[in-house]
Amino acid sequence: MSRSIRLAVIPGDGIGPEVVAQGLKVLTAVLPPDVKLETREYDLGARRWHATGETLPDAELESLRQYDAILLGAVGDPSVPSGVLERGLLLKLRFAFDHYVNLRPSRLYPGTASPLAGRPEIDFVVVREGTEGPYTGNGGSLRTGTPAEVATEVSVNTAHGVERVVRDAYTRAQARPRKKLTLVHKNNVLVYAGQLWKSVFDRVGREFPEVTTDYLHVDAATIFLVSQPERFDVIVTDNLFGDILTDLAAAVSGGIGIAASGNINPEGAFPSMFEPVHGSAPDIAGTGRADPTATVLSVALLLRHLGLTAEAERIEAAVAADLAGRGTTVRGTEQIGDALAAAAAR
Amino acid sequence: MSRSIRLAVIPGDGIGPEVVAQGLKVLTAVLPPDVKLETREYDLGARRWHATGETLPDAELESLRQYDAILLGAVGDPSVPSGVLERGLLLKLRFAFDHYVNLRPSRLYPGTASPLAGRPEIDFVVVREGTEGPYTGNGGSLRTGTPAEVATEVSVNTAHGVERVVRDAYTRAQARPRKKLTLVHKNNVLVYAGQLWKSVFDRVGREFPEVTTDYLHVDAATIFLVSQPERFDVIVTDNLFGDILTDLAAAVSGGIGIAASGNINPEGAFPSMFEPVHGSAPDIAGTGRADPTATVLSVALLLRHLGLTAEAERIEAAVAADLAGRGTTVRGTEQIGDALAAAAAR
Ligand SMILES: CC(C)[C@H](C(=O)O)[C@@H](O)C(=O)O
Ligand SMILES: CC(C)[C@H](C(=O)O)[C@@H](O)C(=O)O
Repeated sequence: MSRSIRLAVIPGDGIGPEVVAQGLKVLTAVLPPDVKLETREYDLGARRWHATGETLPDAELESLRQYDAILLGAVGDPSVPSGVLERGLLLKLRFAFDHYVNLRPSRLYPGTASPLAGRPEIDFVVVREGTEGPYTGNGGSLRTGTPAEVATEVSVNTAHGVERVVRDAYTRAQARPRKKLTLVHKNNVLVYAGQLWKSVFDRVGREFPEVTTDYLHVDAATIFLVSQPERFDVIVTDNLFGDILTDLAAAVSGGIGIAASGNINPEGAFPSMFEPVHGSAPDIAGTGRADPTATVLSVALLLRHLGLTAEAERIEAAVAADLAGRGTTVRGTEQIGDALAAAAAR
Repeated sequence: MSRSIRLAVIPGDGIGPEVVAQGLKVLTAVLPPDVKLETREYDLGARRWHATGETLPDAELESLRQYDAILLGAVGDPSVPSGVLERGLLLKLRFAFDHYVNLRPSRLYPGTASPLAGRPEIDFVVVREGTEGPYTGNGGSLRTGTPAEVATEVSVNTAHGVERVVRDAYTRAQARPRKKLTLVHKNNVLVYAGQLWKSVFDRVGREFPEVTTDYLHVDAATIFLVSQPERFDVIVTDNLFGDILTDLAAAVSGGIGIAASGNINPEGAFPSMFEPVHGSAPDIAGTGRADPTATVLSVALLLRHLGLTAEAERIEAAVAADLAGRGTTVRGTEQIGDALAAAAAR
């Protein structure tokens, strides 16, 4: 019997291709000999948009469907109007492939620098809803560009959408030693959406009696993220709050250079997509200085999603050891990739 | 000629009355002899709601109008359903009195503890829009409580509302030594509102050629708030992003115990309202341990708003000196209030 992974690769813009190359190097190094890796590269992002005006043509979206997973570097460039690639490519993929679990682990590894004094214990995961909320593109503007303009943005939340991501988060909390789940929302102001989230959270919680629960308003959650990050185990929250909290979480736990993420469709009806939380960083693109660690850790999430748990763990152990030994030595993208591939190799 | 300040006082719940008492003590201590202070207390908040079911009756709202300013302690209690007092009292006041400038300074005073390592320079002010955005209460739910529920929240943004707060922020930036204004939004996802904010920001900016401008997505802004808070001078942002950023800003600059705020109607058509950023903290209410500093600094904002600049500066200097000398001595609410009143007194 032989196994294979069909992987679609979207290197994207800026440092995207540089970090993706290292992610693939590490992936190749850890795969068991009987697992064949087939990759296909998709030329999507700023370069393509400038060349052809396309963000994600239907035919390409359709062809991406057949893959087991997608690895994405980063898309975006200041030369492209804000929103074009975000909505036309990145969010289009998340929505089309029903990536309702946007998984973002945060861990302060020994050896990494945190802006927080006293090195608190940080080891939590944010389960960010990925297909609803203020990200649906609902909204519009009236009398645009005039002094009488009105612009709206509609956050759309459904019981269907909230329940599935909340259940996923409980399941993840249940599987962790501390078994704690915190809902983050702003239900004292956003009362309609807040009421839906809170009631679903409470109801689904009855299926998980071992999981301790907590609720925080999003503003208070940011305070705890810097003053007591050790209080968090699993956080579940909506698309926009999750966007904000996970950047903050990355900043307090070793920086955006090591923050990984998975855009997951748990049922496997569509390919899940794995990407570093950081952007395309055009300022350092081409200098060989980008840290590929976030992409490498995203590859670990990808392997775990595909059931290759031991391989995921080898990558995570390699990253932990590498970070612990970094000290003040400055290494480039490729050097770090080589070191991680060598350490994780079977 | 004699002058007078007519001040409406809403002590509120939990530690609210305790910190307000100290705020009034300091206010009385700094006022010039020719300024008469008239206060009237309003019994509003959780206690009142439990007793009568009322949050803010029309007659009281009407009577508040005649005051020069409002000093509010904190409202809210876990015994009141989420949203009732927030929307029925606090936000009702902000909206009814057109408090479109929600002013929240952040400063890391010598002597205060920051969770950030290395004690960065922090001295910025957030101008948070106070009457629009996701706070308008627009939204609803359909098939509530069923598996087919849909709940929406509508962020409403107008050129009218955005322009006035943006101009206020430019004016404040212009008056500060660094003259730098950062717009925070999420215009790559919330494209309609984001486009309105960005175009107004750019257009009004042409009236302030000396002010340096910058734009950050809200997620990136949280990263900079912990990694490079010194990059901020004045921040202008919408109601919800401002809520989140100012709690985070308070957390990194000495804690929520010293964060002051003003809900300002710059035209003076309605009374402006001053309140600490913290809540009613029912867990420490009655213990005499609440820090009144945030309320005292809110009183300084109040005096500045009423044109009593020298008095505001005396309070701020007293607070700075007090914080610098705190060391590890633990003092109670009243002791801190007494010390600040004595130091600020003329
Ligand atoms: C680029 C942007 C659309 C995206 C988001 O807001 O989700 C990014 O910030 C992220 O967190 O992946
Ligand atoms: C209590 C709540 C409605 C309020 C807000 O969200 O504005 C508070 O968090 C604040 O920042 O003053």
